[in-house]
Amino acid sequence: MKTNPCKIVDCTIRDGGLVNNWDFSVEFVQTLYAGLNEAGVDYMEIGYKNSPKLLKGADSAGPWRFLDDSFLREVIPQKGKTKLSALVDIGRVDENDILPREESMLDLIRVACYIKDVDKALELVQTFHERGYETTLNIMALSNVMENELLEAFEMIRESVVDVVYIVDSYGSLDHKDMEYLVEKFKKHLPNKRLGVHTHNNMQLAFSNTLTAAELGVELLDASVYGMGRAAGNCPTELLVTHLKNTHYNLRPVLDLIERLMIPLREKEEWGYLIPYMVTGTLGEHPRSAMALRASEDKDKYVDFYDKLTTPEVNFDPKHK
Amino acid sequence: MKTNPCKIVDCTIRDGGLVNNWDFSVEFVQTLYAGLNEAGVDYMEIGYKNSPKLLKGADSAGPWRFLDDSFLREVIPQKGKTKLSALVDIGRVDENDILPREESMLDLIRVACYIKDVDKALELVQTFHERGYETTLNIMALSNVMENELLEAFEMIRESVVDVVYIVDSYGSLDHKDMEYLVEKFKKHLPNKRLGVHTHNNMQLAFSNTLTAAELGVELLDASVYGMGRAAGNCPTELLVTHLKNTHYNLRPVLDLIERLMIPLREKEEWGYLIPYMVTGTLGEHPRSAMALRASEDKDKYVDFYDKLTTPEVNFDPKHK
Repeated sequence: MKTNPCKIVDCTIRDGGLVNNWDFSVEFVQTLYAGLNEAGVDYMEIGYKNSPKLLKGADSAGPWRFLDDSFLREVIPQKGKTKLSALVDIGRVDENDILPREESMLDLIRVACYIKDVDKALELVQTFHERGYETTLNIMALSNVMENELLEAFEMIRESVVDVVYIVDSYGSLDHKDMEYLVEKFKKHLPNKRLGVHTHNNMQLAFSNTLTAAELGVELLDASVYGMGRAAGNCPTELLVTHLKNTHYNLRPVLDLIERLMIPLREKEEWGYLIPYMVTGTLGEHPRSAMALRASEDKDKYVDFYDKLTTPEVNFDPKHK
Repeated sequence: MKTNPCKIVDCTIRDGGLVNNWDFSVEFVQTLYAGLNEAGVDYMEIGYKNSPKLLKGADSAGPWRFLDDSFLREVIPQKGKTKLSALVDIGRVDENDILPREESMLDLIRVACYIKDVDKALELVQTFHERGYETTLNIMALSNVMENELLEAFEMIRESVVDVVYIVDSYGSLDHKDMEYLVEKFKKHLPNKRLGVHTHNNMQLAFSNTLTAAELGVELLDASVYGMGRAAGNCPTELLVTHLKNTHYNLRPVLDLIERLMIPLREKEEWGYLIPYMVTGTLGEHPRSAMALRASEDKDKYVDFYDKLTTPEVNFDPKHK
């Protein structure tokens, strides 16, 4: 039986940190790493490698927002088979913070950008590649990108050293037909690159879209335990682990992580399929208005929220009602 | 633009009644009917039309478990465009309770059965058809049916008067490839019948599988508002309403129903994507063990639960631990 070439990239700490301002204890992250390793998950994205100097309001965030190599070494003194990954944003990373790979705990550095910054992102990719890391380019908000911009980006990407190019459904607005369309387009224009996918669960399609992508040959599959991630969250790691055919993942350690870590956390923090996120997903919008609504007293006033988003002359701002 | 031939059958009261023992107030059901009508939903399944004489422990259930025609007339004095449906089970329905359609509020009667009872189900279908109703046959637990049984059933169904034949994913264990396989098989063997689909959300695939079925020509799509239904629940009505292409459904009234009815109800009653249901779904089992777990003190002991279900020599019974 042919082995499935898919690899799971668990983003619980990195994308989940957007929910709780990266307020995960060291013990939490250690337990998560041990469990993912036991489950056979290929990568754990343990946070952002941005620089606090380049970000306002950075003081309050947990350490996973600005990963430090010596700190990481204390957190994970003994690495297992699960590789470590970090995400950086254009304009927020200081290249001098990135050690050569042989001196770092990290294996993979992923660069997130909007389409207009692909050139800058590829410069960073080049640097990280030269320092020995595996690299990915994660183009966000693809649903709002025009064809001509995408084709221009493809040209640059084709000539670059980046290992993997991601299809990112930032707004959770894609269905399986959209996903098929994008994967085929990426395959056609980037025949020399491996592909990855990152989904959001606004319309309960994160897992389904990830499966669709995997069946079409997309190799790196982003997920998070119990779906923890910004707003509607991500494709649940537990579903990929149990459902992907011809793989060697184990569900049991992930169930243990959910039981011990995620259920208590979900009591305090909110993510997942909630109606305001469904609304922004179906409208193809960034979830920030829905996140503001959920943080307000009107968090369950769905009809008002929908009316504001669908009435052109009204601006939505819950602070100025 | 071609109009989509799909019709939505909202099962909130009928399948949701399995969650709260049909304890919906008359006002709740009236509000739901008005909202579904405004949303353009085609059918509302308002309950079961089984006989209390044929069911043990029936006294405690709400009136939607044993629909009475004169009661229904009081509940919905003025019908809108949304038709009314009721489900019956083999061996639990008294044919004498079924009035001729012109004397009833009901438009559609659906007969649910396991594969071995298809012959008996088709006899009931024949009776209801003669009394003037639209009819469907809902074959449950298809994932556990052997090919030879299914082919035998197809022969009987082909010769019957039933209008619509349902593909029912009782355990929420199918993915889109399974759904494609089943729809193609049903289309091939039942070329003279329209098809329907009823999904469960154990693996977050209820909506996605319903879309897949719809794209392949399945016409009747079961759903429930906010996904309310037994265990992991169903395909959410709000997602179908907003996402099906070339239809004339309205999302806004469904958002209003969720805000007014379902959010308060979800505080008291439990359904949806919960890990024990995911486990039974991925194992292709009836969710009853997971429902028992959720009703026990060990409701979040996922690893123990998983071990019991996957260790052949251990019987799972939370009462005898």
